[in-house]
Amino acid sequence: MAAVDEHELISRFFRPLAGRAGTFDLTDDAASLAPPDGCDLVLTKDGIAAGYHFLPDETPGNIARKALRVNLSDLAAKGARPLGYLMLLGLGARWEEAWLSEFTAALAADQSTYGIDLLGGDTIRADGLVVSITAIGTVPKGAMVRRSGARPGDRIYVTGTIGDAALGLLAATADSRLGHLDEGHRRHLLDRYSVPQPRTGLADALRRHATAALDVSDGLAGDLDKLCKVSGVGAAVDLDHVPLSPAVRAAAAQDPAMLELAVTGGDDYEILCAIPPEASEAFEKVATDAGTPVTAIGEIRDGEGPAMFHRGGTPSGFSRRSFSHTG
Amino acid sequence: MAAVDEHELISRFFRPLAGRAGTFDLTDDAASLAPPDGCDLVLTKDGIAAGYHFLPDETPGNIARKALRVNLSDLAAKGARPLGYLMLLGLGARWEEAWLSEFTAALAADQSTYGIDLLGGDTIRADGLVVSITAIGTVPKGAMVRRSGARPGDRIYVTGTIGDAALGLLAATADSRLGHLDEGHRRHLLDRYSVPQPRTGLADALRRHATAALDVSDGLAGDLDKLCKVSGVGAAVDLDHVPLSPAVRAAAAQDPAMLELAVTGGDDYEILCAIPPEASEAFEKVATDAGTPVTAIGEIRDGEGPAMFHRGGTPSGFSRRSFSHTG
Repeated sequence: MAAVDEHELISRFFRPLAGRAGTFDLTDDAASLAPPDGCDLVLTKDGIAAGYHFLPDETPGNIARKALRVNLSDLAAKGARPLGYLMLLGLGARWEEAWLSEFTAALAADQSTYGIDLLGGDTIRADGLVVSITAIGTVPKGAMVRRSGARPGDRIYVTGTIGDAALGLLAATADSRLGHLDEGHRRHLLDRYSVPQPRTGLADALRRHATAALDVSDGLAGDLDKLCKVSGVGAAVDLDHVPLSPAVRAAAAQDPAMLELAVTGGDDYEILCAIPPEASEAFEKVATDAGTPVTAIGEIRDGEGPAMFHRGGTPSGFSRRSFSHTG
Repeated sequence: MAAVDEHELISRFFRPLAGRAGTFDLTDDAASLAPPDGCDLVLTKDGIAAGYHFLPDETPGNIARKALRVNLSDLAAKGARPLGYLMLLGLGARWEEAWLSEFTAALAADQSTYGIDLLGGDTIRADGLVVSITAIGTVPKGAMVRRSGARPGDRIYVTGTIGDAALGLLAATADSRLGHLDEGHRRHLLDRYSVPQPRTGLADALRRHATAALDVSDGLAGDLDKLCKVSGVGAAVDLDHVPLSPAVRAAAAQDPAMLELAVTGGDDYEILCAIPPEASEAFEKVATDAGTPVTAIGEIRDGEGPAMFHRGGTPSGFSRRSFSHTG
């Protein structure tokens, strides 16, 4: 590492990120946190590592944004309002102050966007860059949205569009199957892989209306399977209803395998949820008011087992169900 | 990675560690936590990485213990009772199920020892092994022990003995300066480096009596400097009073530089605290009752600047003040 000790790192780069009472300007070993009255805390922990979760030439700003936002996406899916986060930064041998400066500037901007502060953390040497974040949010007592409450008859919704990030990762490798895409479409897909947009605006609507929710990080098909498994239900999804961006549509028009990749690939960070039919109109309205596009893609059904994907009733099997970040 | 996906990892290895209500058997993306009435949460985050924080041939059990206990040590120094933890496990390419089995068995044993549960986490691929833990404890509202409250006249105490771990790291490299030590002493030093013993029993006494405290992770001298800096005070420490194990005494008898290493080296995970003179008798009694040896080593003084180390009044300078885990 360069000739900067941890004390200097904290003073220069991390102390400006710690604004909330109880962090003691990061001059202590720990933060003290008094949760708001009548609230539960919601805790989630996701990490990203060089070589596995972002591109080798990724900018420090995008690495920071992805590390933080994948956690904010989890909080949103649980109906939680973001409160703060702790961060472990494992720095490989080759890093520079300019890198760290850009990294922390991006965190500062996101803190402002999402109304959160750094509560504490640790900076260590590691073989490769690792960012491990614990994000903390709040919900009214007992109100965390679970994966496990979906009931037969519930409508299945997703936010935004599905598959952009999976195709973005493919585009980054200059895969020939996407060679026909124009530059605007390629740029869109790459951006969606690099910088998740957590659906924090949907948290209240989920708490009010969803019987179950999670964020799509390992692929729509596999994540729906997880929701079904813990809820003890089945599901049917009409592929023709899955919302796709113009870029994914263009890719799938050339090669139908791109549709399968879109539905089974990872890194969407959109929200998948189950909404009782009687609440779906209200849900769609509050989602629209919150500026979050939502689309009904299918229905929770009786039974167990993997969700059934079909096109207008004709079953469509997938050779794999999900993308694993441990794989 | 081997042919074990994250879902299977969670089911087999991590779910048994999640006992407390609100973790939903780790079937959800997040945990829900309702802090006890009248309590603040205390949050701390420390991580360890292969090649920097433990020996290359370290056992999975000791890696697990160290990762967890360095965090429990922070909580103890803050006067907090441990409640639970979240863990990110970054696994390098070469790991085996037997390794993970031993790793999680050690966590399970420590959970039982310290009365805590796993609240959530994430398992990812990384270039080298990284364990990042966020530990959560509780204190009565507003009662977290800070680094910043030391006042001139306070007595400076440390728990246990100082320097074993720093010399243990040296012993691990078969450094010739420790060649004369007998096998029992070497074993003691190595154990102290490998497996910290967090002073959780002292938390209540610190909350009742300490004006300031931290755990010694970067060396007694450097960590005392940090305490003084944020408290706006100076300090004087009599080296003849610093508690040393027989192994460190034997090493220092051969080579006085070993005493300097003991006082400036890291990884002690003992607690350093400031106790007003009128409370020192009561503090010593509750510490003894809690089975934690404590020794008065000096005094907080007026002024600022690095703590002064002396032997019976003769100043003793050190060429370095502390060990940096980022260095």
